[in-house]
Amino acid sequence: MSEENSPPRRFTGHLLFVLDLTGTFVFAIEGALAAMRGDLDFFGLMVLAFITALGGGIIRDLLIGAVPPASLQDWRYGAIALAGGAAVFFFHRLLLVVPTQLIMLLDAGGLALFAVAGAGKALSFKMHPFIAVLMGGITGVGGGTVRDVLLMQVPTVLRADVYATAALAGAAVMVVGMRLNRSPQAMAVLGALVCFTLRVVSVWLHWNLPKVMGQ
Amino acid sequence: MSEENSPPRRFTGHLLFVLDLTGTFVFAIEGALAAMRGDLDFFGLMVLAFITALGGGIIRDLLIGAVPPASLQDWRYGAIALAGGAAVFFFHRLLLVVPTQLIMLLDAGGLALFAVAGAGKALSFKMHPFIAVLMGGITGVGGGTVRDVLLMQVPTVLRADVYATAALAGAAVMVVGMRLNRSPQAMAVLGALVCFTLRVVSVWLHWNLPKVMGQ
Amino acid sequence: MSEENSPPRRFTGHLLFVLDLTGTFVFAIEGALAAMRGDLDFFGLMVLAFITALGGGIIRDLLIGAVPPASLQDWRYGAIALAGGAAVFFFHRLLLVVPTQLIMLLDAGGLALFAVAGAGKALSFKMHPFIAVLMGGITGVGGGTVRDVLLMQVPTVLRADVYATAALAGAAVMVVGMRLNRSPQAMAVLGALVCFTLRVVSVWLHWNLPKVMGQ
Repeated sequence: MSEENSPPRRFTGHLLFVLDLTGTFVFAIEGALAAMRGDLDFFGLMVLAFITALGGGIIRDLLIGAVPPASLQDWRYGAIALAGGAAVFFFHRLLLVVPTQLIMLLDAGGLALFAVAGAGKALSFKMHPFIAVLMGGITGVGGGTVRDVLLMQVPTVLRADVYATAALAGAAVMVVGMRLNRSPQAMAVLGALVCFTLRVVSVWLHWNLPKVMGQ
Repeated sequence: MSEENSPPRRFTGHLLFVLDLTGTFVFAIEGALAAMRGDLDFFGLMVLAFITALGGGIIRDLLIGAVPPASLQDWRYGAIALAGGAAVFFFHRLLLVVPTQLIMLLDAGGLALFAVAGAGKALSFKMHPFIAVLMGGITGVGGGTVRDVLLMQVPTVLRADVYATAALAGAAVMVVGMRLNRSPQAMAVLGALVCFTLRVVSVWLHWNLPKVMGQ
Repeated sequence: MSEENSPPRRFTGHLLFVLDLTGTFVFAIEGALAAMRGDLDFFGLMVLAFITALGGGIIRDLLIGAVPPASLQDWRYGAIALAGGAAVFFFHRLLLVVPTQLIMLLDAGGLALFAVAGAGKALSFKMHPFIAVLMGGITGVGGGTVRDVLLMQVPTVLRADVYATAALAGAAVMVVGMRLNRSPQAMAVLGALVCFTLRVVSVWLHWNLPKVMGQ
């Protein structure tokens, strides 16, 4: 991995790298489950696992000019994503035992990590703060959006509840904190907590964003 | 904004920059209206406004190697796009008063500006003239195409009447003129006029491109 | 065309360049036929021909950082793709005479060439071997995937039989051979043969990949 592409990795450190791979694994499992519901074969399932897990980061990297994207330079990302897909293919019965609540919590965790890491990487590539927040959001929801398009569904994220909004909020905390010269580690933790909490609370309280009134 | 990315801005000058932002605003409004019809929430509406307005230019910049894309470097583009989305969200009743004919004229104007600016930028990045015309077309119709895909509709532009064709014609005028060493300003105006006129006349006369015969 | 982007061309040599353009032409014809079935007009048909033929290579080039993509730098690719589209538009009756079996063979040939050339180019851009195989697959199936999305169909490649798998197998042969320092030419031929044979045999024997069991 080139020095140019590595700052976000360095600042997040070893613990966050492990958490990042955990998020990748969780997103891959969700992609593979969507593929199963869409009646795809083994190959389609692996593709959707890969794209759901890594698509958001790849789109962000293309947009900020970090090519080749980090997840195509470090084979461990792809390997973890495909491992998530394979886990669903071979052990999907076991997954039925995992409580939905736990999957939702893991997903919120992945979203939070991706949003914060994406915003941090965009800042380290000298993007405007406004754009860095956007890049945090794209990192969090991009993979799921491409997955939905490939399965011919209007992307859930355009339609449903507080999901992308939570990612943007977490990314905004990160970006504002960095502009105020706070510790990146502390702001990453705070941003991730904001995103995670917002997401989880919105699910429990059935929050939704308003639509255009009078429709 | 880097020098590398700025030539098209410089050659279009201040007036065209204002017109460019106007085109962005109009396209954002159209994206937000499509989101309203698709029953999306506030976030989805803002995303579609952003993508419809800026998607074509972003795709062009990725393809010609102008990364990060200009509209992600200058925050005013994103701000204008989101302002267009917000205008629809909060004042959509007022928009019902705006005559459809006026929206069509503004849209044709935006298309014309985007096509000419896109072709000019591609030329300034040393693309082959044939490709520069294509890039003009993509700048004009790319955003609407991504919007349609996200709303699960076959892109209008693949289906309907003289729209992309007008963009390509305007871009071609620009490219041919520049190859003949004519003044960029003059050729930009001429190209935009050709695109605008072709589009407006085709709507009024209900022109359509032929389909494969005997179908 | 810059030196930077040309290694794959050089190593494949003149014969493979001709075959590459042949693959482009065949894929363009298939894209145009899909457009005809989707009831698109002349412009939509040309767009689908272009995207089906060149989309996979363009996505690969964006991902490995080879911007602008090779097919946008050398006008002959675009010209061949549009010629394929025009051939369908004007002579589609003649195409009805071409046996389906022949089209399938030509398509398998195009897939094999794209997979091997894509993997080779990714290697020459210093991508990880694992990623190079993936890039071979994307080169082969990317264009068809975008075509299907634009026509609002779940991409065939996610759904059906041994197609992408054949591309990945051919790309893997190429990548493993290059890592073992075998002659690029020989490994390209061997990889292409593996992909072609796998694809053709799978069609004749109606092979399919397994789905998740118990569904």
